Amino acid sequence: MYPFEAGLDYVRDGWYAAGWSRDFGDDLIARVVLGEPIVFYRDGEQVVALADRCAHRAYPLSAGVRVAGGVRCGYHGFTYDGLGRCVAIPAQAHVPPAYGVRRYPTLERGGVTWIWMGEPNAADPARLPDLDELGLTHPHFHVAIGGAKTWRNRYQLINENLLDLSHIEFLHYGSIGTANVAASPVVTTVHPGMVEAVRTIHDDVATPFHHRAVGIEGRMDRTTRSLFYLPGAHVTHVTMVAPGSGARYGEPGYFGEFRIVHLITPAGPHETTYFWAVTRTARTDDATTAFMLEAFDTIFDQDGVALERQERALIAAPDFYELSCTADEAALKARKLLRAAMRNERERTFSLGSPSEA
Amino acid sequence: MYPFEAGLDYVRDGWYAAGWSRDFGDDLIARVVLGEPIVFYRDGEQVVALADRCAHRAYPLSAGVRVAGGVRCGYHGFTYDGLGRCVAIPAQAHVPPAYGVRRYPTLERGGVTWIWMGEPNAADPARLPDLDELGLTHPHFHVAIGGAKTWRNRYQLINENLLDLSHIEFLHYGSIGTANVAASPVVTTVHPGMVEAVRTIHDDVATPFHHRAVGIEGRMDRTTRSLFYLPGAHVTHVTMVAPGSGARYGEPGYFGEFRIVHLITPAGPHETTYFWAVTRTARTDDATTAFMLEAFDTIFDQDGVALERQERALIAAPDFYELSCTADEAALKARKLLRAAMRNERERTFSLGSPSEA
Amino acid sequence: MYPFEAGLDYVRDGWYAAGWSRDFGDDLIARVVLGEPIVFYRDGEQVVALADRCAHRAYPLSAGVRVAGGVRCGYHGFTYDGLGRCVAIPAQAHVPPAYGVRRYPTLERGGVTWIWMGEPNAADPARLPDLDELGLTHPHFHVAIGGAKTWRNRYQLINENLLDLSHIEFLHYGSIGTANVAASPVVTTVHPGMVEAVRTIHDDVATPFHHRAVGIEGRMDRTTRSLFYLPGAHVTHVTMVAPGSGARYGEPGYFGEFRIVHLITPAGPHETTYFWAVTRTARTDDATTAFMLEAFDTIFDQDGVALERQERALIAAPDFYELSCTADEAALKARKLLRAAMRNERERTFSLGSPSEA
Repeated sequence: MYPFEAGLDYVRDGWYAAGWSRDFGDDLIARVVLGEPIVFYRDGEQVVALADRCAHRAYPLSAGVRVAGGVRCGYHGFTYDGLGRCVAIPAQAHVPPAYGVRRYPTLERGGVTWIWMGEPNAADPARLPDLDELGLTHPHFHVAIGGAKTWRNRYQLINENLLDLSHIEFLHYGSIGTANVAASPVVTTVHPGMVEAVRTIHDDVATPFHHRAVGIEGRMDRTTRSLFYLPGAHVTHVTMVAPGSGARYGEPGYFGEFRIVHLITPAGPHETTYFWAVTRTARTDDATTAFMLEAFDTIFDQDGVALERQERALIAAPDFYELSCTADEAALKARKLLRAAMRNERERTFSLGSPSEA
Repeated sequence: MYPFEAGLDYVRDGWYAAGWSRDFGDDLIARVVLGEPIVFYRDGEQVVALADRCAHRAYPLSAGVRVAGGVRCGYHGFTYDGLGRCVAIPAQAHVPPAYGVRRYPTLERGGVTWIWMGEPNAADPARLPDLDELGLTHPHFHVAIGGAKTWRNRYQLINENLLDLSHIEFLHYGSIGTANVAASPVVTTVHPGMVEAVRTIHDDVATPFHHRAVGIEGRMDRTTRSLFYLPGAHVTHVTMVAPGSGARYGEPGYFGEFRIVHLITPAGPHETTYFWAVTRTARTDDATTAFMLEAFDTIFDQDGVALERQERALIAAPDFYELSCTADEAALKARKLLRAAMRNERERTFSLGSPSEA
Repeated sequence: MYPFEAGLDYVRDGWYAAGWSRDFGDDLIARVVLGEPIVFYRDGEQVVALADRCAHRAYPLSAGVRVAGGVRCGYHGFTYDGLGRCVAIPAQAHVPPAYGVRRYPTLERGGVTWIWMGEPNAADPARLPDLDELGLTHPHFHVAIGGAKTWRNRYQLINENLLDLSHIEFLHYGSIGTANVAASPVVTTVHPGMVEAVRTIHDDVATPFHHRAVGIEGRMDRTTRSLFYLPGAHVTHVTMVAPGSGARYGEPGYFGEFRIVHLITPAGPHETTYFWAVTRTARTDDATTAFMLEAFDTIFDQDGVALERQERALIAAPDFYELSCTADEAALKARKLLRAAMRNERERTFSLGSPSEA
């Protein structure tokens, strides 16, 4: 499916955000990740993630009840433990040992519940994105969780939206967009499993937004670093300093920084969950936090409307042949990373089944 | 389609409920049965069932008008008699004799309008389910019609729901479900064209429901006979007696009986119409009837919600591989009956068209 | 798709109504024609029609903004002129000359904006329907535009509805339908690119509608000429005169004429836009105009409801085998014209690509 060739859908070996840690508790939560329905619940420190489909008659476990040590199906009472093993069948003494549902590895880090959708043995915490860079665990940054949005568009449209900020001038004009954004050059670098795009706007006007959010009067140098981590984490790192000062944290001329976190979790071919948070160094009082969350909520809703329009246009034109421009460099490089990862996983799958392995 | 192999959809040779007889009158009623749109109207004692699609330009006859002796299409005025023959075309003296629409055999019995969707010559009233067993014509039983529900799930999920009453303890806990239901053993017997599953719960507690509905104080022995008749009739026959009494109708210790009637008519691959009635021997006053109908309406709505959830899960997982347990015995035997009937019909269709018949 | 064979969808070489000229102004208007999303805007005398899909990332241009000389995409700011050429890409000095979107020929005639969906070189104004016959430019006729309706049915159902007015007696009984309509014979003639069907009802009763609309007391001879012009224009030309008078415009016994205009523009396989106007010679005061528009609006809504019912029936019965009657003659002849035109276009497409051309 555009922009990938037929047969490539998702990178599976990678950590995706299942949600914000604060959202998981005793209640059963149903969420679709990479096309697979999953039921979540918290068991102490751990969030359990099981296939949301009873092995007996496919009833969703999320419509059942939480019981000591696990979950019981709400239809015929099959009970599963936190490893997905069936531990009780009503009116039956013996439970066959193979009975069970798939369990997915999870991890709690940086206020996020992460889930691993690929080969369980490869679920290595070292493959998480850099949570300091995201601002989720960085000592200078104050984290305010925005929430989750569900959009009816393929995930890659969000990835590319976040990596081509030239759209800010058009889609978000009047809030964070100024007439200088699209015209400023971008330097793009590919790191292993990661793409970085940096744009510096010199001596730009501080919009009313920047005035209220950071307290900037007059003009600023604004540097935006957009980082993408395979398979679905982004940070938009904005540093605002006095023009020409080159100031760093704590130095004179330093106004403040944002690290806006975007966690992109594909739900299905045409649906994606988008988790976002605002982290920042300046004006961390509650009133400003509320202002920031509301401002970004509005901005991201503009993105959602646009991406759903784009999705409908793409569905209506399966043979769409795109044309690209300079501003697409970072998005095309991220696309290349994702494509390579998907092709690797596909080849590995094929080779596992090939006779030459015998 | 699960749980049957590809190519098997419905048993066609069999009587399905088209509706309750009381619902058919002069008005044209549209209903889809086994994927086929049908228009119904009453002509005296007889309910006429015709393909709901004018032979001229496919306009639904149910959007037309009832005329003397038949129905007239609301678009260009083609008129059909009760046998489906086209008897008038406006501005045309001659109607070609072959012009017409399919007519389906119907039968009025036990307050139900039955329709035969298969080979018309095979439409034998002897193939109706036992209406005395259903309680619809039994002298001891008072019939209260519940109505009809349309659920967005394949019919077989309802058949299996009714044949595995272990779900009562989980899905209907607090009304008819008690903690003893699933644990009580079931004896399953296959008869020609029929499956019977009997569960006796000894010395069970009478719930507030049983107290109100039958007047039972204290404890009871409760025997539940679930009967399934090909292709789509069920009765849940519940006998409640004093513990250990083994009492029969009229004897000391006899509290009462229910024969809950469930008539399952597939509308399409993912939609089914469910007709139900409550028949019983005890407390047949109007207030108790109203209580019973409301109680079962609530219970069956719980089933509907659950089965629609199950359907959506199955649609999302076309390769679902189920695991079964002891409690599935009756459902699996009914499935086997249905599968055999469908395979027989398919083979007969093929052999009719084979050259070796020449 | 019924009633055409698989592979035939639309006639492309022909003028379709894009809308009423009065509806196009500075605003961007999105409309789907023959399955293709198109953005329209007025540029002076000319209405510009461009593919509604930015060549960059498929964003709908209709969600962008009108700028001097063209339209700018609302996502990343690509700008197009009225010929569909990309003339500006933000932050990029050079625009590759091939960058652009498809532009469709348009024409303003008779108060209608016409669009040509086929081979642009063949877009000849001589292929417009006869606008005098339609009553849109005829000196005796006063034009009142009805508007546009979007119906969820394939276009051919509307074409055939308009060419078989025997339906008036059944579908529109009580307004324009009388008991004599279907019984009166029709004379059908095929002209190049056109079908004509004439029905004269002698000494018919003037309905309250005819009384109010034209001022007829008592009886009338009513002649209805239904003209269909390839690919999607109809006029229903009704002449009402004193019985036996044979009167023409201005002569004694002449009551009046209508030329009801119907412009049929396929949107997709199951959706059509229907543009309509009422033109007439009698009682052209505003009150009567309002009465006429309201009356026909009601009548055409009856058609819309019926055709959407027919569409759903056809979708449910892809193997429907129709039976025809005398009254279908004109509709079948129009079908033949359309089929021939579609086959010609298909053959031309194939021959363009065949090696024998080399």
